[in-house]
Formats: sequence, structure tokens, C-alpha cells
Amino acid sequence: MSAQEHIKSTTENGVLTIRLNRPDRLNAWTPKMAVEVEQAVRKAGDDDAVRVIVITGEGRGFCAGADMQGLQGIQSGGGQEPEAEAAPAPSDEIEKLYPGRFGYLYACPKPIIAAINGPCAGIGLIFALYADLRFANEDAKFTTAFAQRGLIAEHGIAWLLPRLIGEANALDLLFTARKFDGREAAQMGLVNAALPAGDLKAHVDGVAQHLSTQVSPRSVAIMKRQIRESYFQDFAASLEIADEEMKNSFSAFDFKEGVASFVEKRAPAFQGR
Amino acid sequence: MSAQEHIKSTTENGVLTIRLNRPDRLNAWTPKMAVEVEQAVRKAGDDDAVRVIVITGEGRGFCAGADMQGLQGIQSGGGQEPEAEAAPAPSDEIEKLYPGRFGYLYACPKPIIAAINGPCAGIGLIFALYADLRFANEDAKFTTAFAQRGLIAEHGIAWLLPRLIGEANALDLLFTARKFDGREAAQMGLVNAALPAGDLKAHVDGVAQHLSTQVSPRSVAIMKRQIRESYFQDFAASLEIADEEMKNSFSAFDFKEGVASFVEKRAPAFQGR
Amino acid sequence: MSAQEHIKSTTENGVLTIRLNRPDRLNAWTPKMAVEVEQAVRKAGDDDAVRVIVITGEGRGFCAGADMQGLQGIQSGGGQEPEAEAAPAPSDEIEKLYPGRFGYLYACPKPIIAAINGPCAGIGLIFALYADLRFANEDAKFTTAFAQRGLIAEHGIAWLLPRLIGEANALDLLFTARKFDGREAAQMGLVNAALPAGDLKAHVDGVAQHLSTQVSPRSVAIMKRQIRESYFQDFAASLEIADEEMKNSFSAFDFKEGVASFVEKRAPAFQGR
Repeated sequence: MSAQEHIKSTTENGVLTIRLNRPDRLNAWTPKMAVEVEQAVRKAGDDDAVRVIVITGEGRGFCAGADMQGLQGIQSGGGQEPEAEAAPAPSDEIEKLYPGRFGYLYACPKPIIAAINGPCAGIGLIFALYADLRFANEDAKFTTAFAQRGLIAEHGIAWLLPRLIGEANALDLLFTARKFDGREAAQMGLVNAALPAGDLKAHVDGVAQHLSTQVSPRSVAIMKRQIRESYFQDFAASLEIADEEMKNSFSAFDFKEGVASFVEKRAPAFQGR
Repeated sequence: MSAQEHIKSTTENGVLTIRLNRPDRLNAWTPKMAVEVEQAVRKAGDDDAVRVIVITGEGRGFCAGADMQGLQGIQSGGGQEPEAEAAPAPSDEIEKLYPGRFGYLYACPKPIIAAINGPCAGIGLIFALYADLRFANEDAKFTTAFAQRGLIAEHGIAWLLPRLIGEANALDLLFTARKFDGREAAQMGLVNAALPAGDLKAHVDGVAQHLSTQVSPRSVAIMKRQIRESYFQDFAASLEIADEEMKNSFSAFDFKEGVASFVEKRAPAFQGR
Repeated sequence: MSAQEHIKSTTENGVLTIRLNRPDRLNAWTPKMAVEVEQAVRKAGDDDAVRVIVITGEGRGFCAGADMQGLQGIQSGGGQEPEAEAAPAPSDEIEKLYPGRFGYLYACPKPIIAAINGPCAGIGLIFALYADLRFANEDAKFTTAFAQRGLIAEHGIAWLLPRLIGEANALDLLFTARKFDGREAAQMGLVNAALPAGDLKAHVDGVAQHLSTQVSPRSVAIMKRQIRESYFQDFAASLEIADEEMKNSFSAFDFKEGVASFVEKRAPAFQGR
């Protein structure tokens, strides 16, 4: 992907790693970065060689928010948004449920892990919330930032945040725009775990390898869809899909392999079908 | 209940205790066990002598998941499910909201406590999620198991789990199928509390006796229904029921007894009406 | 506000403090108190001099629940509720979503902080749940109380509580009516933080001053509405409002001031427009 300017990406052992790559700006978000991340994720969604996607930041930051030059441009330029960030037309059932700039992350059938190595603010935080799993450096600084800029709860965060961390925490983080660290993010359930500086990469690598080799990619893809659709279903509708998918599983290769590897006490060799 | 083969049940001081009883198999779930548990719970729902139901496991396990012989049978037998586990027709408003194999647990008007004494996996974990309160041995091992067997989020767990422990934890447990212990289950809110080995039984006995003697069975039955219906109601509909039930309470024996026992500084003697 | 009998209120530095003021009764809730709190909050909602509302209790209690003389009157008087507490007709979109006695707290465009200084029970707890942020003395005692009085989950708490603290905790607190302290309330997410005795006031003052001076009142008012509406919207509807409000923000004074103060590294002077 030699055309990438604002990200770097590499694939190893079934894991695509996307690095936001403007380290001198703490990887501040740009329209170009948005396009490059989306292209990489959509490509990985269709690539059998990729089982897991990890997103992290180059240098000491994860993503410090919208590039301030962009915001200043809007402020002085009469309130127009940058053209390049226009969201694509929904191409999938999940993207119809979750339209907007980041719905493609939910629609991607691969698990997406955000490894939050440093400052994570504003649109950078929203982006991270659309990952499936989040792990943070325990000293990483987070903030919603919006209320301190005269902005509002953007890109669906008003809908997502109370469902992730409860209403009391959501109102706190949005109203105060205060800074909080990875430890507190873990306590609130905003990230799955906070790790000491230096342990984050090894921990995320471990989870990514586990997902790449120990569980069925078919199971994970179906579960991801089940969870994300569940918010729009009553229990009975969710159960009906579960019962149908359970039956489908019984004739899948990965189910035979899952039972056989368990009985034979050996590592599974899932094929995702 | 001399006909019980895969469970044992006893009633004492208003508390029905159901013990999953295949200790040599860590109480692995069978169609027969499913039928016996359901019969015992439905009977207790109509039995004035039972105010609280406790479900636990005989021996060192709670329920290690579906009996592996059953799964192997499905795997080799062309994907048919066991006939005996077919869910009954919904007989109650709550069971219409929560159809499937375990909806009768939500429909039961008595509080149900799971005392998770040991391994709790797969369908055993799902079963425990349908209890109202859960207490665990802090060393008890939990796992969703499904993704390691090529299966999916079964029996409504995709709908229930994010509502119980938040989306980030739900995706983690379903995607990775990793083992976690009672302490972590308590931190995530999957169980109400984790207790040191040896304290679990006394703690659950204490909660069960409190529920059996200190609170109105009428109040608990109405509250259980209010909570489980609330997910399918907007606020106004939930409030309308609350206002109606509040007025009904004012003429109930248990309200008179609740106020009188408080004013007279004595233990209440609720009658559930 | 010389007419206030059951509350006291003062405004200082943009912060309206409402003190429940029946200290000899641990500020037990009365119809008069309900009317006085509502009048003070509605007035503050329209008062540009007020940016934040703090509600606390005079003396050693927050609010010990419904005045027991009132409950005894209902018990002996044939089940009639006090007339004076009748809820007003909904006057606002949010109050249509959240009808009932406390919907005006959600409809108020200012952030509302409950400083829970002592016992917080029954309707006093429900009242506190309608605040936006809650901070508690770590030794403050909480209880739902209802099940011990033969009552039910009143005034919408059956809908609110599982969304705030998860279903397992909600069922525990409603079924058992057990007492719990501020520390446990914080662990469950029922309050945003628990503070040592003596630190509560300073902490709440700090949060209130931060909200009054460091963030845009316009942003906070819009975010409060976004969150409270989000439970009744699918993601797409919530996102549509967010996109519209984001565009509106770009031409607002507070956005210009938010970016300018950040770039100029100075404190913002937001105007709420």
C-alpha cells in the first residue's frame, strides 16, 4: 500500500496492523487519514489472509483529535466541513443500522482491536469506540474535548457512550470534557483493560494471536453481527437469528473442527467456514 | 420429586434449592436436566411455600456446558438437535417477550439466585444469566466456549450479555472464549459478588433468607416483571405501569404490614398479597 | 425566594444550590418540597445567570424518603395519594419522553448535580437518579426501601436503574432493599464518585465551577438532550441530529471562542450561544 500517506499498514500471522502515522501531530485526524483507514479496513474485510485488525498510533500518541488547522479552517471559513470526509453509501445491513463515517468498522466481519498507546481525544476517541476491543496504556490521556470547543456529541457518540459505560459516566465525560487516564477508562468499561507502559503491545499481540488461531473466524463474524444488531431487535428477533445460526453452525467445518480438536486435545485449525 | 435423575431439589424455610446433579460430569447439561429444572421452577412458581429459588451444582462444578456426547452426536449425526429440548409454547406475557428455552425463568414470579460453585461454561453460563441474582466462588472458572467450538452466541446471549456487562466486555467474552474467574465476573457485573471458597453457601443462604423473610413477595414479583418488561417499553409506558401498581400497592396487605412493622420497629410478616 | 419552606436556594458564581431543608426529618420528601424544588429548577432553566444546579441536603441527611406521616396517611386513609404532587402537563419534547414527577429535571437545559451528603432512600434515591451527575459521601447510606414497605419500583426507577447500573445490580437493590454505602454506589456506577467525609462539598464545588466556566453552556444543553433522547432513537436518528447540531455549532459564538481560546492558550469566555 505504497500510496498511504497518513497511515502505515502491515500484515503478519493473520493480523493487519494499521498505524495512524502523523507522529509529529500526535496522529491528529485528517480527511486523508479517514479515507486511508477506511480503504485498509474494507480491503481486510474481504481478505482471507487477515483474521484480526489492530489499530494503533505511531509515536507517542494514538489520535489527538481533529487536526486543529482543519477546525480553524471551519471556524474562519463559514462553517463548511471538509469535502473529502463524506461518508460512503451504506453497502451492508450493518451499515444501514450504523450509517455515518465509522459504520464500516462495525460492518467489517473481522474483529478490530484499538491499541491506545497515548493521547486519544475528540474524533480520535470516537474512532476508538467503533473498534470491538480496546486496550490502553494505563497512562494514556483521554478526553471527549467537544464541550471545551463549543461542539456537541458528534458522530453518534451520544448513542454509543451510555450503552458502553452507563449514563452517569457518559454525561460526566461529555459535559466536563475532563482528561482521564487509561486506568479510569478501564474502571468505567471504556477500554477492556489498561496495561503498564511497555506491556501494551505484548498484550495486544497476545489477544490478536489468540483470535487469529484459537477461535473460529466464522463464529466471530457471526457474533459481531449478532451483538451489533441486537440493539435494534427485541429479544425474540435476536433469538430467532441465534437459533437459525446455531443450526447452520452444526453443518459447518469449524464446528466439526472445534469439537474434534477439543476431543483430541489439540489446537484447532479453523478455516472460517 | 423422586423422579428426578439429573437434579436434586429440596425446600426449606421458603427456599427451594435445585442442585444440578451429574457431579461426575461437572453437571454437564442434558435434555433431561433441562426438563427437570423447568418442571421444578414452574412448580415452585405456583407454590406458596416457596418464596425464593436457589440453583447450584452438586460436587465441584456448577455446569460445564452441553454434554460433549450430545455435541459429538450432533457433529456426527448431521446437525439435528435433540428433540427433548424443544421449548414449550409461551404461556405468559413475559415468556412472549422472552421465548426460547429459558424464558420460564424470567416468567417465574419468585426471585431466582444462581450459586455458581465451580466451572460454568457454554450453555451452563447462559442458564445462569437467566437467574435474577448470581453469586460465585471467586475461583470458579467461566467461559462462553462457543467461538472455540465453531458455534455462535446461542439462546439469546447476544441480546442479554451487552445489557448485563456492557458491549466491550460482551465482545471480549464471546470473541475470545477465554476463561475468567469469579473475581473478574464480579468486576464486570456478570455476577453480583464473588466470595472466597467456603463462604459462597453461607452468603447465598443469607440473601435467600433475607428475601424469604424481610421483603414482600408481592413487591418482588411485581418488580421482577417491571424490570424484564422495561426493555420493551419506552419510559412513559413503564411509568404508567409503575403508577398503576403503586396505587394497587396502597390497598395491599403487604403495604399495611410494611408500614406497620417499620413504625412498630418489628420484623415484617409479609403474606405476598 | 422567601416563600420557600422545605428548601433553601442560593445562587453564586453561576451555580444555583438547592438545599432540601427539613434537617430534623433527614429532609424527608413532602408534596411541598416537591413543588418548591420544581419551581426552583424551572426558574433556573430560564435564568441566564445560572449555569449549573447543585442539589444537596441540609444537616446530616440528603433525603430519607417519603415522609412517613404521609405514608401512614395513605395506609390508613384508603389509598389516596396526596393531591399536591400531581405532575404538571408536559411542556417540552423531553418531558413528553419522560413524563411524571421528575421529567422536568431531564428537560432542564442546565447540568444538575446531586451532592448526596447523607441518607438517600426511597423517593429520595429516585429523585437523585434524575440528576445528571451524582457525588456521594462515601459513608452515605442508600436504600431503595420499596420492597420492605410492600411497595413497587416507583416513578420510573424500573426503567432507569438497569440502564444506569446493569440488570444484576438493579434487581439486587430493588429485591433486597438492602442498605449500601457511597463506596458501593460508586463501584456500581450509581454515583460518579464517592468522597471521604469532608471532601464532598469541595469536590462538587470544583465540578460545578468547572462546568460553569470551562465548558460551553450551549454544548452542555445540546448534549444533555442528545443523551436523554438517544434511548428512544435508533442510531441513525441519533446520528442525524448529531450531524445537524454539529453544523449548527460551526456558526455559534461558543465554537469560535472554544477554538480561539485553545489556540491562544487562555481560559474560554463562553456565552452559551
